[in-house]
Amino acid sequence: MKISIGPHPIIQPNPVLVVGSYDKDKVPNLMTVAWGSICCSVPPCVAISPAKRTKTYENITLNQAFTVSVPSESLVRETDYVGIYKGKRENKFESLGLTPVQSEIVNAPYADEFALVLECKVIQSHQIGEFIQQFIGEIMDIKAESRILGENNLPDIAKLLPIVYDDVERNYYKTGDWLAKAFSVGTKK
Amino acid sequence: MKISIGPHPIIQPNPVLVVGSYDKDKVPNLMTVAWGSICCSVPPCVAISPAKRTKTYENITLNQAFTVSVPSESLVRETDYVGIYKGKRENKFESLGLTPVQSEIVNAPYADEFALVLECKVIQSHQIGEFIQQFIGEIMDIKAESRILGENNLPDIAKLLPIVYDDVERNYYKTGDWLAKAFSVGTKK
Repeated sequence: MKISIGPHPIIQPNPVLVVGSYDKDKVPNLMTVAWGSICCSVPPCVAISPAKRTKTYENITLNQAFTVSVPSESLVRETDYVGIYKGKRENKFESLGLTPVQSEIVNAPYADEFALVLECKVIQSHQIGEFIQQFIGEIMDIKAESRILGENNLPDIAKLLPIVYDDVERNYYKTGDWLAKAFSVGTKK
Repeated sequence: MKISIGPHPIIQPNPVLVVGSYDKDKVPNLMTVAWGSICCSVPPCVAISPAKRTKTYENITLNQAFTVSVPSESLVRETDYVGIYKGKRENKFESLGLTPVQSEIVNAPYADEFALVLECKVIQSHQIGEFIQQFIGEIMDIKAESRILGENNLPDIAKLLPIVYDDVERNYYKTGDWLAKAFSVGTKK
């Protein structure tokens, strides 16, 4: 018997993604988001939904470009930092000693310390409610450290060790043990 | 030194979500998606991006409503099944012996076996590329089994045991060990 718990912005689990963008003076910024997912394969696209009060919103609106990095668990402190503090008040790259790299493909930066980076060009933008702007970014290329790639030259989750986020109790989790093979465990017997 | 691996629709990790919808004859359907995330808090909204070839796309377009369930790891077989087979060819509730429940709030069904269900009304819809339609659903209410709720009456990830998905190698993973406290581990010392 289910009970009503009211409307809340809750799914479990969430990814942990770090969005990179430039301001008008080319100061690089990073912001952590859990509200993001792939949303298309042809062309490959990712959707993110930053609040309009953020530096990230201003920067992406200006440049129509951003990066999305997937932080590894070893960078959880840096990842949390860029989710807490405001790009309008500080250069978070300098605060954390992260290495800014300009994408060669889109007008947006990323931190070299993150092992997997999507370089994105805005192809759609939608206001949701009063406070949020969703950006659909076409993934123009992915840059990755060789050490996190599998034999197919694609990211290996067991090497990348991406972080899982629970927004209810605000905890980061590791990606856990293997559970089952997809497109396999549920096939008709 | 990063290398280019080309554009791919890849982030890690992805959530595993099951979308419920009715067709014109009120036949209930379920489809598993990894392309979904929360996208707004005021009002609370979730974004999903089904392919336009699917029954789910047809049904949501018709009713402007859907449910999003978060399956627990114990239901991985059923979850995989509804991601593999086509709602245009079978009633997946009947195939799996799942119990269809009509939402009292929106014109969409869910499987009673899933412990956490978001009831959503479409407030925006966007075509992305040629083949995908993104639906933004306002979460009108959440229904949950008491056994997966924490002391705050919100879902407890350690009780729900949601599934993590890796689209690269098509594997399901468990939510892993606790890593760090968010909005805490990265605070300025």
